[in-house]
Amino acid sequence: MPTIDLNADLGEGFGAYRCGDDAAMLAIVTSANVACGFHAGDPEIMAETFALARSRGVAVGAHPGYADLPGFGRRPMPVTAAEIERQVAYQVGAAQGLAALAGHRLGYVKAHGALANRAAAERDAADAVARAVRAVDPTLGLLAIARTQQVAAGEAAGLAVHAEIFADRGYDENGQLIPRGQAGALVTEPEAAAERVLAMVRAGAIVTAAGTHLPTRIDSVCVHGDSAHAIAMARTVRARLEEAGIALRGFALRTP
Amino acid sequence: MPTIDLNADLGEGFGAYRCGDDAAMLAIVTSANVACGFHAGDPEIMAETFALARSRGVAVGAHPGYADLPGFGRRPMPVTAAEIERQVAYQVGAAQGLAALAGHRLGYVKAHGALANRAAAERDAADAVARAVRAVDPTLGLLAIARTQQVAAGEAAGLAVHAEIFADRGYDENGQLIPRGQAGALVTEPEAAAERVLAMVRAGAIVTAAGTHLPTRIDSVCVHGDSAHAIAMARTVRARLEEAGIALRGFALRTP
Amino acid sequence: MPTIDLNADLGEGFGAYRCGDDAAMLAIVTSANVACGFHAGDPEIMAETFALARSRGVAVGAHPGYADLPGFGRRPMPVTAAEIERQVAYQVGAAQGLAALAGHRLGYVKAHGALANRAAAERDAADAVARAVRAVDPTLGLLAIARTQQVAAGEAAGLAVHAEIFADRGYDENGQLIPRGQAGALVTEPEAAAERVLAMVRAGAIVTAAGTHLPTRIDSVCVHGDSAHAIAMARTVRARLEEAGIALRGFALRTP
Amino acid sequence: MPTIDLNADLGEGFGAYRCGDDAAMLAIVTSANVACGFHAGDPEIMAETFALARSRGVAVGAHPGYADLPGFGRRPMPVTAAEIERQVAYQVGAAQGLAALAGHRLGYVKAHGALANRAAAERDAADAVARAVRAVDPTLGLLAIARTQQVAAGEAAGLAVHAEIFADRGYDENGQLIPRGQAGALVTEPEAAAERVLAMVRAGAIVTAAGTHLPTRIDSVCVHGDSAHAIAMARTVRARLEEAGIALRGFALRTP
Repeated sequence: MPTIDLNADLGEGFGAYRCGDDAAMLAIVTSANVACGFHAGDPEIMAETFALARSRGVAVGAHPGYADLPGFGRRPMPVTAAEIERQVAYQVGAAQGLAALAGHRLGYVKAHGALANRAAAERDAADAVARAVRAVDPTLGLLAIARTQQVAAGEAAGLAVHAEIFADRGYDENGQLIPRGQAGALVTEPEAAAERVLAMVRAGAIVTAAGTHLPTRIDSVCVHGDSAHAIAMARTVRARLEEAGIALRGFALRTP
Repeated sequence: MPTIDLNADLGEGFGAYRCGDDAAMLAIVTSANVACGFHAGDPEIMAETFALARSRGVAVGAHPGYADLPGFGRRPMPVTAAEIERQVAYQVGAAQGLAALAGHRLGYVKAHGALANRAAAERDAADAVARAVRAVDPTLGLLAIARTQQVAAGEAAGLAVHAEIFADRGYDENGQLIPRGQAGALVTEPEAAAERVLAMVRAGAIVTAAGTHLPTRIDSVCVHGDSAHAIAMARTVRARLEEAGIALRGFALRTP
Repeated sequence: MPTIDLNADLGEGFGAYRCGDDAAMLAIVTSANVACGFHAGDPEIMAETFALARSRGVAVGAHPGYADLPGFGRRPMPVTAAEIERQVAYQVGAAQGLAALAGHRLGYVKAHGALANRAAAERDAADAVARAVRAVDPTLGLLAIARTQQVAAGEAAGLAVHAEIFADRGYDENGQLIPRGQAGALVTEPEAAAERVLAMVRAGAIVTAAGTHLPTRIDSVCVHGDSAHAIAMARTVRARLEEAGIALRGFALRTP
Repeated sequence: MPTIDLNADLGEGFGAYRCGDDAAMLAIVTSANVACGFHAGDPEIMAETFALARSRGVAVGAHPGYADLPGFGRRPMPVTAAEIERQVAYQVGAAQGLAALAGHRLGYVKAHGALANRAAAERDAADAVARAVRAVDPTLGLLAIARTQQVAAGEAAGLAVHAEIFADRGYDENGQLIPRGQAGALVTEPEAAAERVLAMVRAGAIVTAAGTHLPTRIDSVCVHGDSAHAIAMARTVRARLEEAGIALRGFALRTP
């Protein structure tokens, strides 16, 4: 029976602010990407999220981003690849520490927002992320956007790389995400998103807006936790996958 | 031949700010307490300090403090023991990550400033620090102020506890540091400081302002990196100890 | 026809985070206390809130708090009265700047959270707030909790002081707010809150949990913007006041 | 008798960090550009710097920068012109507030670091700065790098614009600063810097590295407070100007 992972960004609050319905999402996904305090998250929220994920049997990954709380890590920041390497090592280490404290164990790393976009497109940034992960713990997996520099960099670094597709985003003919604001960038209807996911998983390929199939390994499907219909969409995607006989299973669930 | 450790707080800059002469101090001490980004320090400075310490053969410890950059971690912050536990776990993990990236390996943890003062006096805070260290890595040592709650808490948690005295601070009859601003609080003359250190190490006791001996294990001597005559005092303390036949050796030097 | 002001804390988001339904609240209240970037708020949110308030004809005040984004300004911070004075002057000036940019004009100042609690109870903190306001602009009003040190300090400083009561909080026999967590601390039912407000406004007195009347001037009623039923309660309070023939009017509405 | 202004960036510390010898510099310059808490500075340091400048009879300006403490405001940040406008209004207002509290009065605004570089080159950023200054207080002067978009934008906004040259930087044939790292970027010898300044002031022109004269109004000379020989260079520049019969006078000294 084929299996796949379903991942979402969680623990994205800060201080008194909360973002999304983490408890609901943890009942659906198999992997939780936990913000590490740079673009969102703080030690309280991280510990709470790791503990909740553990009680739900959900795998956890560090979700490092740029040091940019005002921009939620979505702005391209003026940092070098060397600075990225050190900022990722810091955040992954911090996440390991808090996961351990919460009785869970970190399984993988997934870059966030503008850092992920840069690591997808630029090999030096992708290498910096991969080097940081390997230095901190070479047994950690790397969850990377399918068909990007991150996949290549992670494999070159000897990491276990897992490739993800997005449930709610359209792809152009190069396999790139259609930028927000352009037609076809977002898939907002849960059933439509679920159909697309199922088609791509079955085909072993990204299906572009024009219908082209771009072959790729697909290990995980990313559902977004902070969009309007996040929970409904995640539930629908999961249900359709299960109905199609594809089991949901985290690729990096570890026990302390 | 008896041995002792000499430790100092290093890497206490932030961004473009620098604090103290770390390179000079790393040529003198055997253990470097590295700030972890909450009260001082950032990923760049941490990586640089770990790398420099490694090249000098100096042991490194995480030096977690309150999340208080404006107050340099010297202000008593309104946090619970549970929050301390999570903030320490975060910082120790982050330091492990960056030490690994820099090719070094973290050997111990020492609390900073107001957090250290609270953990010295209040058992619940001391327990929180000890629990955090044990959860992140039970093989890490705990460098604690001699004759405080931190020593007891660390031992109760099963950690390897190392006790320190201060080269430049006077002690009252209870073995407490005389508060800054009171007579006898600071020892500013390097020779006087070195003589006091030597007397305490030989006696295996804190020597109070009144001359009373309060027995304690002494594993390390703390020299401050940011006072006016920091480097001169550290050199003098080291020289007197060596002249007295006491070898300087880090208690927690690890290799990656 | 008697008049009264209805005020609420607005603009309490930060970066991508939002807090409460500001647009809805601005259709109800006559004065908006705008967070100034220390405990919440940022230049984007401040400008947006000032502009929205202006378009609604709602008066605006600076709502300075402790420099404590992680604690939302609700934690007692270790700062001196002199530091409070400077932090308030900074925030009030910043709010004036952004109000001017947004085409509005600041009318008053109201301290937030733990800073307000301290200024209510401690005269030196209350004096610090009053001195800061007077130094920045002596024509600004001071919105203070009724029957507190803030009222006395503001009047001693020569400021126009306006006293507020809370719609959703119970009062003890000393006229103090019953601490959260104790019985009677919170009034959650909109009609009950509105009845209490009306009774106090008519009596010109705080009505305690035991029914005692503690005479005080009442210039404004504070409704909270971030509680569960915030909007409903605010609407009900406003409706009851108007039905009773009390006109809602901001005490400090200014035009640029 | 001709006059000119001598300005320097001051108050560039943060929390426990200090940067440069402000007291020494305030005995030399006629205008102090005071950091506003975004790239450096905090309410304590701002108040202290304003008070010291007042006691020295030195004019004070707000020195707003990007919200980038880690990068000291020297990194090009991903913000729009509209965001610049709001961030500058916030900082100028805050500086007005603290200057008033310290018994001084703000006379002008000068952008810092990467924000200044952008406003020098890009008209929309220059307009944003000018609009913010005019909105907060149209009587404030604008201190701008000579022959840049900032001068044009300030004049178009109806502000009193004052043009500055740099004592320690070389200029290319377009009147642009030679980028750091290139030959001729820095003038490190005090006498050489003083000679260049005198030549430019007498000529009423920027003198390029090749000796070309590019005519410009010169109202002020910027000396840097944080370079190695900052104080010596500032003293020498001032002395040469005075020996040449040019009086030093702040263009925007105001009294409260």
